[in-house]
Amino acid sequence: MRGIFISVEGTDGSGKSTQLELIKDYFKSDNLVFVREPGGTKLCEKIRDIIINNDMCPESEALLYAASRAELANKVIMPALKSGKTVICDRYIDSSIAYQGYGRKMGIEKIIEINSFVFNNCMPDMTLFFDITPEECILRKKEQKELDRIESESLDFHKRVYKGYLDICYKYPSRVRSINAVGTVNEVFERVKSQIDLLRCKNA
Amino acid sequence: MRGIFISVEGTDGSGKSTQLELIKDYFKSDNLVFVREPGGTKLCEKIRDIIINNDMCPESEALLYAASRAELANKVIMPALKSGKTVICDRYIDSSIAYQGYGRKMGIEKIIEINSFVFNNCMPDMTLFFDITPEECILRKKEQKELDRIESESLDFHKRVYKGYLDICYKYPSRVRSINAVGTVNEVFERVKSQIDLLRCKNA
Repeated sequence: MRGIFISVEGTDGSGKSTQLELIKDYFKSDNLVFVREPGGTKLCEKIRDIIINNDMCPESEALLYAASRAELANKVIMPALKSGKTVICDRYIDSSIAYQGYGRKMGIEKIIEINSFVFNNCMPDMTLFFDITPEECILRKKEQKELDRIESESLDFHKRVYKGYLDICYKYPSRVRSINAVGTVNEVFERVKSQIDLLRCKNA
Repeated sequence: MRGIFISVEGTDGSGKSTQLELIKDYFKSDNLVFVREPGGTKLCEKIRDIIINNDMCPESEALLYAASRAELANKVIMPALKSGKTVICDRYIDSSIAYQGYGRKMGIEKIIEINSFVFNNCMPDMTLFFDITPEECILRKKEQKELDRIESESLDFHKRVYKGYLDICYKYPSRVRSINAVGTVNEVFERVKSQIDLLRCKNA
């Protein structure tokens, strides 16, 4: 039986990382494979290093993310799902739609075109989107010392990314579940659990 | 006045590199920008290093070439052409069509989709294809000591690549000029010059 594939999405500062730790813990009795994007294989980590440390045109940025994603899907996610494992991925195709498609203004169609391999062959059963406004995220992020190339983009950029995520929620309602990310860690995680439990029931 | 953009294509062992030296020399009085693919900028050279030294799925390979190409087009080729310079590029989008589209069996449409930015915005005025059979190439290559990851592919792979180039010649006759690559260096270069001279006349 094919395993469950869940991707986790959100703007920087949405509390995604904290929730991911709880989600991993919640799945620990399962045969769990956890990966992050970009990354997850030796090749993908090399691509990650290039993306984070170099300025580049929006097209190259989107293509490098897509290259890393295709390799991760081919070498890690698809084989794991085939052998019945649960896969949780920190960011996936929706990050490219939101960050490159909306943030960099490339458009959603272009991103899906570039990512057509994973879009046609390896999509999550459920995507959790941690919904919190860019303004609130910025307040939270002020506590972080170092921001990377993409995290340090303007507020306008992050507003476009957020708008991208809202559009994705509207466009793919059966796959993407919006989680209100405002509240205590436990309050937010209760919302997460309710979605995960229902998906597990459906797949049991 | 926009400069002239020429790309140079051929299977490994077609004599392309030798002819490229003569072509560069022929253009030396012009304001010439010479680039090779993948490569041509600091970022593109890093991507080149990843492509050459890592095994990967066909999708990632095609996407990495496309990422390098988009950056090269954006940062080097388009600005050079705009300022009236002649640009000569050692391999370009047709290499992806031949090597990933045919060699790796991804199909021509998929490659054009992935490369839609350069396909729609930055195509060569002329592409010179050095036509020689894969069997003849292999005889020539035997003199080379070290072959890279793609050069060391099977004869079947190189036959598919060659078929890809022939299809490209058929599909884009006004852009792609097939040069008979059998003969002495000077005989082949005479064929090259006749094509270049006519293009220069047209653009003068």
